[in-house]
Amino acid sequence: MTWTSIDLNADLGEGFGRWRLTDDEELLSVVTSANVACGFHAGDAATMRRVCALAAERGVRIGAQVSYRDLAGFGRRSMDVPADELTAEIAYQIGALEVFARAAGSRVSYVKPHGALYNRVVHDEEQAQAVVDGVLLAGGRLPVLGLPGSRLHAMAEKAALPVVTEAFGDRAYTPGGTLVPRGQEGAVVTDPAAVVERSVSMARFGVLTTRCGQSVAVRARSLCLHGDTPGAVGLARRVRAQLEASGVRVEAFV
Amino acid sequence: MTWTSIDLNADLGEGFGRWRLTDDEELLSVVTSANVACGFHAGDAATMRRVCALAAERGVRIGAQVSYRDLAGFGRRSMDVPADELTAEIAYQIGALEVFARAAGSRVSYVKPHGALYNRVVHDEEQAQAVVDGVLLAGGRLPVLGLPGSRLHAMAEKAALPVVTEAFGDRAYTPGGTLVPRGQEGAVVTDPAAVVERSVSMARFGVLTTRCGQSVAVRARSLCLHGDTPGAVGLARRVRAQLEASGVRVEAFV
Amino acid sequence: MTWTSIDLNADLGEGFGRWRLTDDEELLSVVTSANVACGFHAGDAATMRRVCALAAERGVRIGAQVSYRDLAGFGRRSMDVPADELTAEIAYQIGALEVFARAAGSRVSYVKPHGALYNRVVHDEEQAQAVVDGVLLAGGRLPVLGLPGSRLHAMAEKAALPVVTEAFGDRAYTPGGTLVPRGQEGAVVTDPAAVVERSVSMARFGVLTTRCGQSVAVRARSLCLHGDTPGAVGLARRVRAQLEASGVRVEAFV
Amino acid sequence: MTWTSIDLNADLGEGFGRWRLTDDEELLSVVTSANVACGFHAGDAATMRRVCALAAERGVRIGAQVSYRDLAGFGRRSMDVPADELTAEIAYQIGALEVFARAAGSRVSYVKPHGALYNRVVHDEEQAQAVVDGVLLAGGRLPVLGLPGSRLHAMAEKAALPVVTEAFGDRAYTPGGTLVPRGQEGAVVTDPAAVVERSVSMARFGVLTTRCGQSVAVRARSLCLHGDTPGAVGLARRVRAQLEASGVRVEAFV
Repeated sequence: MTWTSIDLNADLGEGFGRWRLTDDEELLSVVTSANVACGFHAGDAATMRRVCALAAERGVRIGAQVSYRDLAGFGRRSMDVPADELTAEIAYQIGALEVFARAAGSRVSYVKPHGALYNRVVHDEEQAQAVVDGVLLAGGRLPVLGLPGSRLHAMAEKAALPVVTEAFGDRAYTPGGTLVPRGQEGAVVTDPAAVVERSVSMARFGVLTTRCGQSVAVRARSLCLHGDTPGAVGLARRVRAQLEASGVRVEAFV
Repeated sequence: MTWTSIDLNADLGEGFGRWRLTDDEELLSVVTSANVACGFHAGDAATMRRVCALAAERGVRIGAQVSYRDLAGFGRRSMDVPADELTAEIAYQIGALEVFARAAGSRVSYVKPHGALYNRVVHDEEQAQAVVDGVLLAGGRLPVLGLPGSRLHAMAEKAALPVVTEAFGDRAYTPGGTLVPRGQEGAVVTDPAAVVERSVSMARFGVLTTRCGQSVAVRARSLCLHGDTPGAVGLARRVRAQLEASGVRVEAFV
Repeated sequence: MTWTSIDLNADLGEGFGRWRLTDDEELLSVVTSANVACGFHAGDAATMRRVCALAAERGVRIGAQVSYRDLAGFGRRSMDVPADELTAEIAYQIGALEVFARAAGSRVSYVKPHGALYNRVVHDEEQAQAVVDGVLLAGGRLPVLGLPGSRLHAMAEKAALPVVTEAFGDRAYTPGGTLVPRGQEGAVVTDPAAVVERSVSMARFGVLTTRCGQSVAVRARSLCLHGDTPGAVGLARRVRAQLEASGVRVEAFV
Repeated sequence: MTWTSIDLNADLGEGFGRWRLTDDEELLSVVTSANVACGFHAGDAATMRRVCALAAERGVRIGAQVSYRDLAGFGRRSMDVPADELTAEIAYQIGALEVFARAAGSRVSYVKPHGALYNRVVHDEEQAQAVVDGVLLAGGRLPVLGLPGSRLHAMAEKAALPVVTEAFGDRAYTPGGTLVPRGQEGAVVTDPAAVVERSVSMARFGVLTTRCGQSVAVRARSLCLHGDTPGAVGLARRVRAQLEASGVRVEAFV
């Protein structure tokens, strides 16, 4: 299976106050969808405003990168948040971002959970449902970006929300098509050429080669690029350039 | 000058997580406008949702009670927040609340600064302008509730935003029609009968008697009631009852 | 097995800024050990100072009630905090409290985890070890208050830290001597007379009767009283009075 | 007037969670006194622990860089914190840092206010006194690092606390010997050679040349170096090297 087009998404606006992390300016010249931090794991209000303005100016879609409330842990620590609190917190974040997206002449076009919440709603049905309920509460029936096969997508589909699948050019996959857990050897692909090759293979053919040489189907409407490490933006540019050189249209999912 | 009708507003939803402060249920049976805390000085997302739902159910208007970011100080400590940060933070809070107001079938109908910010924008033109810019950024040209003669109202009027004046039945006024500063003797009126009498006098005649026996014009479209002290709700009820008994219509400003 | 004496501990200082929760004044006239919140789930610095001064004045021991960093959730949400972060955060809290205990002429005499952390270190060996490492890092080889049989106590004993066992007069126990999980029917004992009777039975005989009528050994050096609900202080007083009337000495563990 | 020796201090550990700001490793090879962030404007517990361990290892003195509670504003926004709260917060921060200094085999040797608090206690007597009270509350009669002529130093001297004066090689001074306010033209000296020359001049002769060519006495026991901008560490190294080449002993104030 091949896609004629692919979306490129990345996390943006992940500074807070005095601290910066992501090179928002540069990333916005590469991606088609910007996962904007909404203040719970990162992203103060002034940064949200600035990133939304830049994204709108460049025609990049704005998504709400929703998170546990955890600045100290950057949203990377799984938390047993009761469903009703999580639901309200998801809606709160979407609403706050919407203001800046609208002010920039755009709107929040999708939702993507961040960090520990992203990982948890792969398998935790209660929190997956809470996230979906938060999206519903915020209104607008926004698409939910996540892993194919995740509980998040199952719950979203039950609620008739659009789902958008994503894949990672820099992560190893199991023969079953799921991510090799971080911490396991080889979980992260560090060779830039390999990342580029894998990204193109997924975008064009929906197929990856596992570490054992097997082919595995990895269908995704969007590729996630990383922007918070040295060299990350350069690699993101290479991925995009090679996708386009291979005849793949790089464009936001509608 | 007399008003045929008066609005009653109070601060609501001023708990945070495990902590409660305001008796939201009871106050919502008294007031016509609810100043809902938006998470910066108080007000977690689940509380905001709950209070908006209750307010909508009872036909009480929902206002964004915007504040400095200061949970530890309950927004009562004046802060030198740069204008662009303050503007973005005001918009952020309005946007977050809007989600819950909309979900309840209502909408955010006005904005009222809280605590130290409320006091500061009486005279600080830069912060007053920053608040107005935040309201404009959030869209919808929301009315701004505040003190007559405040810089906040001056800046709001320049920006063609509607302004709504408020007065306090439990605060003493100077012959000039401004509030006697807290900390000065007699600044707060503690006798319930006096609070009721003053509230009715302001609502009916736009007039108060100062501590020195002078009459002073205090014109206000809304009276602010307090709900965070023992006996406060009972006093609020008495004020409303006496207003109605005096032929004043208690209703939200449009 | 009987104890000639029992310690009574309670959580104190669990307000934050404008918000109050525990009736610190009253509780300090009942308990012998005060678990003082250290700012991570509750407890601002001024409150910590005030509670330590009161406790020292009344000869009540001061303990560090350490928690996950989670004001919004009151420390009641289990969090996957990496061990090195948790260790540092435990030490940070103990150090902060020590300043106020010393200034009051006392010192931090023990450590008790709060809420979700308390429950997690019953079974989570990594976090239990992280808490113990935090206590060691803070110096002074402080006793660790917790559930008998918990991983926390196992790790503390391995590190040669003193352990102090506690029990709950208002919680049901299984025939195995462990707490009936909250959420299960009958987990919390609400009848005041029963709470008093159970407290005395544990203190005098180290024995409780389960819901099914079996006797179960519940040995504890300290009984935990609750102070954050209406009537809680009155109940705490009754427990203490009945213990003393039964010939049990109420005194802090050394 | 000349000093045979000078102390070099810099702000360290000013990251938070995922965010880094200062190059702590490098700065610790240049300075003799480390102003360690204590968690209120920056500085999580794990960072505090790491920086204290490094500082102790290299014989660098550890100071508590105390701040307003303001992560979002990096402590750079002046706040009207009531004196008793500020006092308690200062003591809290010192106590928390002390744990990590002690664990590293060192101790907190001095206190330096950060950012907006630093600037405010130059002239605000009430907050200056509150900071001094916090230092006293924390015990140990720690020296207070600050501007000569500041209210902070006046209040500290009244309380018989040692004071340590500091100066800035990269800031312009008025003929009266005070700092040219940031924002005014020429307030910050950006030419590296000039910064080096001025640092040496202050250390050797206690004298600076103002922008108008006048000589002004600037006596300081410590020079403050900055480490949060590109090239800052290199410049700090040059300052130290030139001081030593000029015969100035670089060593911590006792």
